[in-house]
Amino acid sequence: MSCGVLYGVGVGPGDPELITLKGARVLAEADVILAASSTRNDFSLALDIVERHIRPGTPVERMGFPMTRDAAALEAAWAANADLAAGHLLAGRQAVFVTLGDPLTYSTFGYLFRTMRQRRPDLDPDCVRVVPGVTSFATAAAHVGQVLAESGESLTVIPGVKDEAAMRRLLEVTDNVAILKAYRNFPALRRMLTDMGLAGRSVLVTRLGLEGEMVYRDLAEAPENPHYFSLILVRAR
Amino acid sequence: MSCGVLYGVGVGPGDPELITLKGARVLAEADVILAASSTRNDFSLALDIVERHIRPGTPVERMGFPMTRDAAALEAAWAANADLAAGHLLAGRQAVFVTLGDPLTYSTFGYLFRTMRQRRPDLDPDCVRVVPGVTSFATAAAHVGQVLAESGESLTVIPGVKDEAAMRRLLEVTDNVAILKAYRNFPALRRMLTDMGLAGRSVLVTRLGLEGEMVYRDLAEAPENPHYFSLILVRAR
Repeated sequence: MSCGVLYGVGVGPGDPELITLKGARVLAEADVILAASSTRNDFSLALDIVERHIRPGTPVERMGFPMTRDAAALEAAWAANADLAAGHLLAGRQAVFVTLGDPLTYSTFGYLFRTMRQRRPDLDPDCVRVVPGVTSFATAAAHVGQVLAESGESLTVIPGVKDEAAMRRLLEVTDNVAILKAYRNFPALRRMLTDMGLAGRSVLVTRLGLEGEMVYRDLAEAPENPHYFSLILVRAR
Repeated sequence: MSCGVLYGVGVGPGDPELITLKGARVLAEADVILAASSTRNDFSLALDIVERHIRPGTPVERMGFPMTRDAAALEAAWAANADLAAGHLLAGRQAVFVTLGDPLTYSTFGYLFRTMRQRRPDLDPDCVRVVPGVTSFATAAAHVGQVLAESGESLTVIPGVKDEAAMRRLLEVTDNVAILKAYRNFPALRRMLTDMGLAGRSVLVTRLGLEGEMVYRDLAEAPENPHYFSLILVRAR
């Protein structure tokens, strides 16, 4: 079955220069841009990067991603998004779904990708392609000036919403940790890291890559409610 | 103390288009390029990417990184490398140390960075900067067409040389795993994953990003001695 191409492009952590050459090229060739309007922050930051690369007049379509735990509502929204993307493909267009960071690492692209495959098993797999991107945790390490992992060490990435028991089990057996989106549960995370004797081995970065970025090498000095773009790097052992 | 700048630049996984715009710009501005000659593969692949971006005639210096477990020999080699890099800085040059993937994720840049800080505590920290890059595991996921991690899941990255007991403990508590450099211990890794009931949830990618790349969705069909650029992605649960 002949078709256009849907690219999932990781535009990197927010700095417009941290998109790849391939990401920039694919954007410049795009007929239409797709972006999840999951949070206003992510959407406008991704779009700011995109606008430097697309041809003037290229349409941008926001894909609704309702902030709900209602599984049926979520599924319906993603089915509609997948059909919209498939429509562009079948019309022979090059559509580019943009996402901060990397498209397969905690990104909404994963949902779109899977839903499309479920709903359109007839689509040639080569019509959907992924351009990987620079992650927030690699960028945080660069800004802090700290190795993420080296030699025989393990590196575990944990979303800040993970339940505490699971997080503790991971912290007990891994060498290095990046806790993403550490904003909502920050007071609980700080308490846990302090309990485990890891507060002194942890660094919090807030407003990563934005105006007013802060690096807290002492968690005790961090604010109770850090910004949405916050993550913690832990050298656990 | 005034100085030039040493950049650690991640040139990405091997595809010359997967370097960032910033990485390409920093290379184009460089007075001198530094690269670890740790393995011939890595060195020549990184250099191939670099040559598309540097100004003609920019010198390239290989930094020896002896393949030995002799700690004193290693330390002496890295001290010499750090002094060489510091010499460029003190002469006011823009030196760029290039590394495949990301400079702070299992890269030789981590050693250089730390050794320089130990030997030259007087250097302004802002004279050493890191440009993050796209990792091999994000690229492998893109090629396989498989989500690395999503939503509340954890993602653990483990070097293939890690001892089996530690690897099993990690596989028991994490949701997704990327086992890097899975070439030397591949038969043992395959046995372990099979034992743990995870062989069917594992994908091996060999010659990642190179001519002849292969994706094995059935580990039983993989060769005993895969290529140096090999990694395994596991959706553990």
